[in-house]
Amino acid sequence: MSSAFELLTVDGPARLGRLQTPHGTVDTPVFMPVGTQATVKGLTPAQLHELGAGILLANTYHLALRPGDEVIAELGGLHKFMGWQSPILTDSGGFQVYSLALSRKINDQAAVFRSHIDGSLLELSPERAMAIQENLGSDIAMCLDECPPFGTPPEYLREAVRRTIHWAERCRASHRRADQALFAIIQGGTEVELRATCASALVAMDFPGYALGGFSVGETATQMVTALEPSTDLLPAEKPRYLMGVGRPQDILAAVALGVDMFDCVLPTRNGRNASAFTLDGPLRLRNARYKRDPGPIESGCQCYACRHFSRAYVHHLFLAGEMLGPTLLSLHNVAFYVRLMADIRQAIAQKRYAEFQAVRLARWGSTL
Amino acid sequence: MSSAFELLTVDGPARLGRLQTPHGTVDTPVFMPVGTQATVKGLTPAQLHELGAGILLANTYHLALRPGDEVIAELGGLHKFMGWQSPILTDSGGFQVYSLALSRKINDQAAVFRSHIDGSLLELSPERAMAIQENLGSDIAMCLDECPPFGTPPEYLREAVRRTIHWAERCRASHRRADQALFAIIQGGTEVELRATCASALVAMDFPGYALGGFSVGETATQMVTALEPSTDLLPAEKPRYLMGVGRPQDILAAVALGVDMFDCVLPTRNGRNASAFTLDGPLRLRNARYKRDPGPIESGCQCYACRHFSRAYVHHLFLAGEMLGPTLLSLHNVAFYVRLMADIRQAIAQKRYAEFQAVRLARWGSTL
Repeated sequence: MSSAFELLTVDGPARLGRLQTPHGTVDTPVFMPVGTQATVKGLTPAQLHELGAGILLANTYHLALRPGDEVIAELGGLHKFMGWQSPILTDSGGFQVYSLALSRKINDQAAVFRSHIDGSLLELSPERAMAIQENLGSDIAMCLDECPPFGTPPEYLREAVRRTIHWAERCRASHRRADQALFAIIQGGTEVELRATCASALVAMDFPGYALGGFSVGETATQMVTALEPSTDLLPAEKPRYLMGVGRPQDILAAVALGVDMFDCVLPTRNGRNASAFTLDGPLRLRNARYKRDPGPIESGCQCYACRHFSRAYVHHLFLAGEMLGPTLLSLHNVAFYVRLMADIRQAIAQKRYAEFQAVRLARWGSTL
Repeated sequence: MSSAFELLTVDGPARLGRLQTPHGTVDTPVFMPVGTQATVKGLTPAQLHELGAGILLANTYHLALRPGDEVIAELGGLHKFMGWQSPILTDSGGFQVYSLALSRKINDQAAVFRSHIDGSLLELSPERAMAIQENLGSDIAMCLDECPPFGTPPEYLREAVRRTIHWAERCRASHRRADQALFAIIQGGTEVELRATCASALVAMDFPGYALGGFSVGETATQMVTALEPSTDLLPAEKPRYLMGVGRPQDILAAVALGVDMFDCVLPTRNGRNASAFTLDGPLRLRNARYKRDPGPIESGCQCYACRHFSRAYVHHLFLAGEMLGPTLLSLHNVAFYVRLMADIRQAIAQKRYAEFQAVRLARWGSTL
């Protein structure tokens, strides 16, 4: 089977849905922890499963370079390789080619670049992006797109959109696996008309899902929301909508209010490794000396393993002592925080009180867009 | 309650026993994973509990320096602080004063030294070693001893033994907690007569348990066994015997054959962090390119979480990619290997076939003493 999306209810533009995949069903809006190199940094699959993570993202670029997608295919695919039997979405590799790879050259045929690991010369074409993701065997694959940085002149943005549409056609033509859904990616930066052009071309190709790419690349949150609103309006209501690489809790709240269903971001694990904890009352910096004797949990009321068993004082100690368990416990808590945030969002939509929920949460964080 | 030891059966000098502590009962011979800074590196208490670890060791020196034993006492003691409700043994801090601390001066009153963390001037006396361990609230505390390195001239070894006996008297006199057992440490290097002097003086003081210190400090395995045999003969049969800082599986097998009941060592976690796995057929170096496509578990037949869910190829990938999960999975497997080794040792003693068991194990490892 491939993936199917069911829209259960709406509360204004905010949507409650259910995404079926060959490895299980996911309730949306959903957050996908990032397992860049076939592991969510610092956490075991058992820990992720216990804290309620339902779907992970893995990075095609990283896995194609190391250990290689053919190695993973030979070992039974990505799910088996990384010991994760729930759904996996893979990106196309495009974003990393633009952000990580060396000596990058892009033409209509492909992106040619050097590996950031060993400098070897590689090529990523739409056909190769499909072959890699089919080797990985993710539940959801992404079309190869071109994702220019914020501040790219409109004439080049237009070129990138043209190429993104052309590559989406080639991705669809070369994609083979019936047990893998292929989502298209809408580009266009913060140029609303360009995004509309891109969206209408891709919607006409009837993909099972649509991603909004090219956000969280340097623009402000206000610029993102301004460009996001008309973009989501162009997408078919019956297909899932995925905002790539976003983001902070307040960004997720804003995007859900505009009708986005899926998110991914490295923040919970990256901040966890840097001793920063997400809480309903805003971030805690656990290295701060004020926590040296604090017997309370990381976040009061949180039911994650870290909050049930350890004090802020202990986590503070672990970071000062340079112990691996510090990053592990805070990554675990932060991913649990995001999982809980999404559950609370879904409940608020189901109860038709999403706007109020969003306002109360933002007020408590002391944060506005 | 304090601790009590019951000798269940013997097979030659090898002993099967049971050690009761305020936080539970431990079957001996037992291996104690090392949680130097109130954490076994890379593992959660839940993972340690699941793999069957029954008692941990924590380091008095490290915890007194950071976060401070009074901070831990204020937070409810070491068990609560580190989220470990099973037994804990703390060392006296002496070994680290000799191996880690700076500008060390020792006289009969105390060891005076500078912290290896911030250079602050500190003093460790027998009374202070007792106060720290009572603040930590471990189930088993150790007397402060003097542990000279291998190769120390006999005249200084004699001085260290005299001081170790004197300090044991002062430790016993100042020790207060009825819910904490205090073990004495026998020193004397590889000088058998000195060890006998030390043992008879300490046995006369009637401690609830005895440790053999000053091993694994640079001597060969043969030198250790040669000095160990007469040492264990001097100890009362009804008290537990703990060989500090040992060691490799073959060293543990040899020491059990001489009547030792308790062990601790950093090897399983340190080797795990360095991509080296213990197996019944000897060590695997998981960074080796031969494992790139190896679909088998780390160790065939092992039932630990890492072996049940992941391939050698995946662990190889994690280490090459610099992912934290690599050290975590191999530390977990290695501690599980030691836990299983001790269970097999206990079964062999119970079935009165320990000598054969030891010979078969050593032959399979391709290793002899």
